[in-house]
Parts: sequence; structure tokens; C-alpha cells
Amino acid sequence: MQPEGSSKPSASRAAGSARSPTLLNAERLKAVMKAEGADAVVATSAENVTYTSGYWALSQWIRRGPQIYVLLPAADLAASEIIASTTLLDQIADQDDVWVENVSRYGYFQVDRSNAPLDALDRRQAELYALPDQGDAIEALVSAIRAAGLSRSRIAIDEMGLLPGHWEKLRDKLPDAKLVAGFQLLRRVRAVKTVEEVARLKRVAAITEASIDAALALAREGTTESEMARAFHGCTISHDAFPVIGCIGFGTRAAMPNVQPSSTRLKPGEVIRFDVGGRYKHYRADMARMAVLGEPDGKTAAYARALHVGVLRALEMIKPGVKASLVFETAVEAVRREAIPHYSRSHVGHGIGVDGYDLPDLTAASRDVIEEGMVLCVETPYYELGWAGLQVEDMIVVRGDGIESLMTSHGSLRVMR
Amino acid sequence: MQPEGSSKPSASRAAGSARSPTLLNAERLKAVMKAEGADAVVATSAENVTYTSGYWALSQWIRRGPQIYVLLPAADLAASEIIASTTLLDQIADQDDVWVENVSRYGYFQVDRSNAPLDALDRRQAELYALPDQGDAIEALVSAIRAAGLSRSRIAIDEMGLLPGHWEKLRDKLPDAKLVAGFQLLRRVRAVKTVEEVARLKRVAAITEASIDAALALAREGTTESEMARAFHGCTISHDAFPVIGCIGFGTRAAMPNVQPSSTRLKPGEVIRFDVGGRYKHYRADMARMAVLGEPDGKTAAYARALHVGVLRALEMIKPGVKASLVFETAVEAVRREAIPHYSRSHVGHGIGVDGYDLPDLTAASRDVIEEGMVLCVETPYYELGWAGLQVEDMIVVRGDGIESLMTSHGSLRVMR
Repeated sequence: MQPEGSSKPSASRAAGSARSPTLLNAERLKAVMKAEGADAVVATSAENVTYTSGYWALSQWIRRGPQIYVLLPAADLAASEIIASTTLLDQIADQDDVWVENVSRYGYFQVDRSNAPLDALDRRQAELYALPDQGDAIEALVSAIRAAGLSRSRIAIDEMGLLPGHWEKLRDKLPDAKLVAGFQLLRRVRAVKTVEEVARLKRVAAITEASIDAALALAREGTTESEMARAFHGCTISHDAFPVIGCIGFGTRAAMPNVQPSSTRLKPGEVIRFDVGGRYKHYRADMARMAVLGEPDGKTAAYARALHVGVLRALEMIKPGVKASLVFETAVEAVRREAIPHYSRSHVGHGIGVDGYDLPDLTAASRDVIEEGMVLCVETPYYELGWAGLQVEDMIVVRGDGIESLMTSHGSLRVMR
Repeated sequence: MQPEGSSKPSASRAAGSARSPTLLNAERLKAVMKAEGADAVVATSAENVTYTSGYWALSQWIRRGPQIYVLLPAADLAASEIIASTTLLDQIADQDDVWVENVSRYGYFQVDRSNAPLDALDRRQAELYALPDQGDAIEALVSAIRAAGLSRSRIAIDEMGLLPGHWEKLRDKLPDAKLVAGFQLLRRVRAVKTVEEVARLKRVAAITEASIDAALALAREGTTESEMARAFHGCTISHDAFPVIGCIGFGTRAAMPNVQPSSTRLKPGEVIRFDVGGRYKHYRADMARMAVLGEPDGKTAAYARALHVGVLRALEMIKPGVKASLVFETAVEAVRREAIPHYSRSHVGHGIGVDGYDLPDLTAASRDVIEEGMVLCVETPYYELGWAGLQVEDMIVVRGDGIESLMTSHGSLRVMR
């Protein structure tokens, strides 16, 4: 353990190579920390670690357990520090998104070193491997907090990524600090996107739309849901994105909210519902489109139109300052008025970013207010057991005077012939 | 809340449709529960929910937060119960793997119902939606525990899937129960696979090998790591599996343990290292293969041979009753003797199943003992900064008198011309 405020046992990039955060909304983080009186924030969950530092640590993303943290001091964000296991240091060196310079490592992991001259990437790795071993994740975090002079401060710790017992350990090892839950604080920060985040969300939306087109290109009698899923995900992969949600259902199966593709074959007149979205450079898509094989019957056409109108009315009114609850009411009322008087919903959308459910929540009870720079999924799903499911879900970014759609396709019912 | 031991507020399948678990090793679960004096186990993390009940709940697998539980009473596993949010009930009805009949639901979610006659799948869904709303996940779990007459029992609760504060809530609401951490108990159970699990692991291993072949088919001067990754994941998708690990690195980049594909182009004489594996029907692959473009130099050839021999020696000695620590020593010693005297490792493998790191741990300090039915990844990675990384990792299943390999390809260095 380091004496309070001592020089940090961490590796920094060479002078002159300082980077700025591109994913983290640094100004908003500072404002939210100030409003909540937090002297520091510690990110612990996969989404928050990547969001705050740019560091995507493979094992943390594929299973629960691996502990990676980012300590962000309010007084000087440039002094932020990544705490990582030795096994994952290579990714800090190799990832362009990583802007945090200070790193602490913990745990044994063997990487040998050749006598050959090292290139810049390998030099940075060698520097990181040469750091002292801080023992375990919690010890390393406590050392970093002490070294930053924060051991008597108010620290908002993202509680979602810690393992059972970790919070208590931190409390015991930092008896003079005031530890408060930080997950919601970071969720508030994440709600308003940076330019780079919007660019990635736009890209993943485009990839997902292309993937829907690839799947619909197979729409004919006898095609299975699984065949469409393969075409969908295959297209996503071909654009360097990764599958996350792939709900594709035909006919009555489309009434299952989470329908997973099966060997069910498409029949004439049946609806095809997509609720889908991959991940591109860590950023998520979530959108819904609906189609029908051949002419829709009257109910299908009317309901599909009503759901689409619900989304359109919501999009027309979304701008900075509007209450999320009003967006909810507007969408639901529009659907009811158009054609589905019994339409009822828990929400009509949500934010999206590095997580699939960012703020705001578009619910009746939401106290969120729309802000410029939010990226939203606006949706009006309808599920009717024994009949079908229909859904429109658009991704949009909130601009100063309204919205910019991230979609290139229209949300109306597509008739496949 | 239900009175203790009352009839359960849950939906059961129609009589005669009872299913048996195919993923869960029920006999082993009973034995481990008996040995640990657990009257019941509660699965809470995504892996354990799917493993114990066969239920794969989409949202629980893609983000941290959604709470799904499985209550498994030692006295009668057939009385096990799934606790699920209303939003995810459709998947219980639609998934063939689900063998647990009793379900409790919590939370509002709107699904309408047509007047048309329902098929069996929709009837089951209607039955589940008609269950009373138990409020929230913890309330629903507490009700289920009370209704099962377990409120004064010793209950092993998988602590890894709960949210912060949940453990304390359970303790407060079940003051007469003895709650103990259950994650490790379930990990012990999962270590020995069922016939169906081995079949899935064999399948995902084959898909991953085919995907490596698809990537290596592009091995020529100028091919990028990303191009190989697209071919790799595209092949995985075409076989209905999903990407999880895709470390593919060339030359000095192959020395990064977690190398993520980049625009780096392959050069003659360079090594290509794969540490990869998808997920098929919830089951993971994790394997490593190595190749070189053109003739390998002497060091590459010798080191690759040594690492392969390390795995082969380990595989030769693996059989029921052998200590995991001895497997570790054998592999490391073999590599040292062959060509890399300084070879040093934290582990030479691990179990694999619904999680990528099941028991046993093949480490020097491991107290695990090899058992029949375990599925192992046996590996000897070597990372040398400034030179390259090489790795062999085979998936195998332990049989009564040795091993059966799940691999179809040889682990030696492949020379690509």
C-alpha cells in the first residue's frame, strides 16, 4: 500500500501522447459529480469501464467475475487510473479508445520478452507488465484511492460490477471515506452522448438495417426463421459488428416478445417481426421492423399503421425539454386513436449506448426530461397471443430543435412479394 | 405472500408432459447438496439459471440487472420452480430445454390475447401470463421458498446473479432460514457433464474448428487479421453458433494474450495465433491453434513443437482420479524439457461448459481431482513480447480410462503455403 498522496505506482504514457476521452462525456461527468458532491467515481461494470476509460477488457465482457476498475477524481480527470488484472494489460496498450494514462495492475501472469527491439505497442506493454503487482483488485483500488489523496473523500462506486463482499472490504479498508452507490450517477452521465458515440450508434443502426434487409431478401414461402437469422447475423458480422439481439418471428410466433428463431417456415399472409440489434465498437443497436408475406389482411394493415403512427407522433414532439412521460402518453394515445383502442404498454422506448437500456426511460411514471444529445429507441410493440406481433422501433438522436433519425428505412409494414 | 407450505401460486405443465433435465447433472446436484447440507439451492446467475432449468432468458444474458431465479429443493427436484419477470415468460414456453414445470412471475408487461383458438405453445404462454403478479423478483423468490416449506431451511443461494442489496433483503424476509453462498456449490455440480452437455460441447468444438479453417483459407501475404476474423465468425454464425472469443493475431501481435483482430497485414514467415470459441445452444468452445505463413524459422518450429508436446503429455495422463496439479506439472515440465526451459504458466487449462471457466482448474495449487465426464480445455500458451505468441489448446472429455478428444484437427503448427 502506498502512503497517502505519494507518487503513483502506475505507468503513464510518454509525455506528449496524452489523449482525450471520446466516449466519456467528461463535461457532463464533472457536472453530475459536482451536483452529487462526489469527489471521485469508480467504474466497475463492463459498460462503465469501457465508457469512462475507453478500455474494453475481453474477459469482463464475456463472464461475470473479472474485476477491472476506473478511478476518476473530480479534481483532475487527467489523473484517472485504470486498475486491471495482469492478464488483460495487452488490451490497454492496443486500444485506440483508451485515453486514461495511469494504470495499476494486479495478479500473476507470465509474458516473456524477447531481446529484439520492441515497437511502440510492445514497449507500452512492457511498461505495463513492469508495474508492481498490487495483489488483488480491491487492494489495487484501495492503493490507487490512497495515492490520489482520496481516502477521506466522498466516492461514488459503481456497485454493479463488484463481487459479493467487495463493498464491505472497501468500507473496511477505507474507514474515513464516504462510499456511495455510483451506478445511477454513471447512468445519468451516459444519457447524453458525445460526437463519437453518436457516430458509432449511427453506424451500428445502419449495419442492423442492412442485416434486416439481408434477412428479408429470403422472405418467401417455406423460409425458416433460422435461415433469416443466419442471414441477419452473417451480415452483421461482415460489417465487423457482433450479434446481440436477434428476435425474428413469423405469424403467431411473432407475438412472443423475445421470439428466438426456430425451424418454423414462413406461410403466405404471415407477419415477420424483427426486434434486433448488434454491437459495433461496443455500441448497441436495438430496432424493430415488420413485414408481411403477400397482401396483409385488414387488421394487420390497420394495426401496423397505428403502431407506426404512434412512433411518428412521438418523434414529432421529441426535443430538448420535453418530459419523457409526455412522449409515452403521446405514443400510446396515438396508437389507441388510430386503430387499437385497448393498446397498453409499460414503456415506449429508452436510451441506448454502450448498454441497451440507457436513460431516459420513456414510461408513464418517468421523471426524465429529454436533453440534446440523447440517443433514443422509440417503440410501439404490440403482442397478441394467437394472432401475431407487430412492432416499430426507431433509433434517433435528439438535436437542438428536434430529432435526427439514425434510420434509413421507413417503419411502415413492408409487403414482401 | 403465501402461507407456509400452501399450494403454489405457479403454473405447471399439463399432467403427462413432465420432462427430465438434460443439461443439469441432477444426481451430482443431489450428492453435492447432501454433502454440503443444503436443503435447497437457488440459481441466480445467467449460467446457473440456464444450467439448472434449461431456461435461457435473453435479457439476463446480454446485460446485468434482469433477475431470474431457479429454486431447487433437495427433497424433490421435480418441485423446482422458475421465478421470472413477465417480460420473459414466452421463452419458458418456447424452449425445449426447459424441464422445470413450476413458474412464478413478477412485474407488469402487456401481452394481449386473440379470440382465435390457441395452439399448445400459445396456451402455455397464456397459462404463464395468467399467473398472479408476485410484485418483484425477491418477493417472488421469498413466496416460492415459503410455499415450498423451506423458510426454516439451509438454502445455498448463488450470490453472483443477485443485485446489490438483494442478499440483505432475503435475510430480512427469511429470518429463520440459514442462507449460505451457493455459487461454488453449483460450479462443483457443473464440473461433470451430462450426455447432452458433452454432445453440445463436441458440436461447438467442431463449429469452432471449421471456423478456424475458414479463416486460415485466407492465409496469404497481405490478408488482415480482421478479414480472418470476419471469415471466422461468419462460419460460426452459419452453423447457428455465436461469437464469443475471437483472438486472432499475426507476428509480434500474437504475443498479446487477448489480441483483437486489426487491420494488420500478414507477412511471410509470420505466426498466426488463434485463441477462439463460439457458443452453441448455450455451450462454449475455447481452443487454440497456430499456423505460420511459409516455412517457420528454427525457433518457431521448436517452440511450437514443445508447446504441442506439453499438451500431448497432459492428455496422455488425464484420467479419473488424477490430480489437476499433476496435470499442470506434467505439461509445464514437458514444454521446458522439449525446448523452452524458462516456460512458466499460471494454468494449463480449465473446465468448460455453459461458462468458459468451469472446474477443474489446472493449476499448480489446484486441489481438484479429474473425474469421468469432465470436459477440459488443456492449453500451453506462450507469449513473447517482440517475438510472437504460440498456443495449443485442445478440448477433451474425460472417459473411464482416459480421454476422448473433441478435436478433429492436430495441434501442431500448420504451415500455410
